[in-house]
Amino acid sequence: MAGYKRYRKDSEVSYSLGITLTFELLRYKKEYVTRVFVHSEMKDGDTLERLRELCSEAGVEILFTDKIFHVLSEKENCYVIGEFRKFSGILSGEGPHIVLVNPSNAGNLGTIMRSALGFGFEQMAILRPAVDAFSPKVVRASMGAIFSINFAYYDSFSEYREQFKDRELFPFMLQAKKRLQEAEHGEKYSLIFGNEATGLPEEFLEIGTSVIIPHTDRIDSLNLPIAAGIAMYEFSKIKA
Amino acid sequence: MAGYKRYRKDSEVSYSLGITLTFELLRYKKEYVTRVFVHSEMKDGDTLERLRELCSEAGVEILFTDKIFHVLSEKENCYVIGEFRKFSGILSGEGPHIVLVNPSNAGNLGTIMRSALGFGFEQMAILRPAVDAFSPKVVRASMGAIFSINFAYYDSFSEYREQFKDRELFPFMLQAKKRLQEAEHGEKYSLIFGNEATGLPEEFLEIGTSVIIPHTDRIDSLNLPIAAGIAMYEFSKIKA
Repeated sequence: MAGYKRYRKDSEVSYSLGITLTFELLRYKKEYVTRVFVHSEMKDGDTLERLRELCSEAGVEILFTDKIFHVLSEKENCYVIGEFRKFSGILSGEGPHIVLVNPSNAGNLGTIMRSALGFGFEQMAILRPAVDAFSPKVVRASMGAIFSINFAYYDSFSEYREQFKDRELFPFMLQAKKRLQEAEHGEKYSLIFGNEATGLPEEFLEIGTSVIIPHTDRIDSLNLPIAAGIAMYEFSKIKA
Repeated sequence: MAGYKRYRKDSEVSYSLGITLTFELLRYKKEYVTRVFVHSEMKDGDTLERLRELCSEAGVEILFTDKIFHVLSEKENCYVIGEFRKFSGILSGEGPHIVLVNPSNAGNLGTIMRSALGFGFEQMAILRPAVDAFSPKVVRASMGAIFSINFAYYDSFSEYREQFKDRELFPFMLQAKKRLQEAEHGEKYSLIFGNEATGLPEEFLEIGTSVIIPHTDRIDSLNLPIAAGIAMYEFSKIKA
């Protein structure tokens, strides 16, 4: 068997680090799971039993080896790793979309996926250049939401827009005129967020209804996942 | 002169890494600045000129040396470091408070400070055990908000509560009954958030009005800084 390698963007597989993430993987994307690794310090018990059951149902081999943990896991207390082939989604034209233009930070992308799943936004477009969604850091920060969110990459906004016409577009920008609380919307809309450092390019002011989340002038801007979280909360007003 | 050491929790000073943070430091906490370091790759120009002016006004020495950058800065493009003595705030009983119970992650604490300043929450109580607010990671994630937010540490919630009686208390909890949109409040209130992994202990259900940010059952919880950001947004409803 070949030695284990660090994850790279061009790897065919990625990894869920930890038991909780691996359960999410087996629950929502079992057809993509290739192997599950268990560390020698993993204790026998209900959790391992449940893992065996899920792997058995999915037809996935469990390997008991510590080697891959040295390569992939920087944290202690990671005793289970799931290996999975990368998947790609096809977005539905129905319902709301989240559109991330050039997101660059793995933790942010994962956090936004988690919030999106929490507020019922299950369709996400990611515009390149962008961070690799399959980076184990994204997987971890998403807390497994990456296995449920339907996401797809696009090379440009025009490519995205051609595929999804007739949607209300809401670019979030500091120069916007409409305040978040005033933004009205139907069922088919896209919330559009720019890069962490640069925000959206000015031309987005001409697209749809640009929106600002009002804040004091004591900060330059809100952190991207915070802004996206607030926007999703306000647009969804989910009645739990 | 002694060699430069990595930041430690018991260090008397901490550091702002980068020019933008150091400008914020000199603007809002200049009386605490001890030295400013400039890297040899820093170019002459308006930015350096402005830095010289601010340091001169504050009576702060500028040292041109690369050594400290090797020790403190993992990122490239960090050409300015500000060194400052740690400060401590005394909270005012007026206006709203943010109360963080046992926050453990530096990036989260900094991000919450940034959101707090953005939504006009300038008083923050941090309950131990908790991450060190002066860690350069917190300073960086706060984008300088740490130099404006008035924060203080407490050893327990009862210590905090004894000092600030007659406030409306809003603990954010998954078991709460009141939905965020329904929570009514006056001027003197405290938004209380628990630890990233464990949330607030159950006894907080008996304190004030417990609040939940409704989300789908597809996630276990919102990320802490997201929850805090949404809560502050909803409570402040800031009219920019």
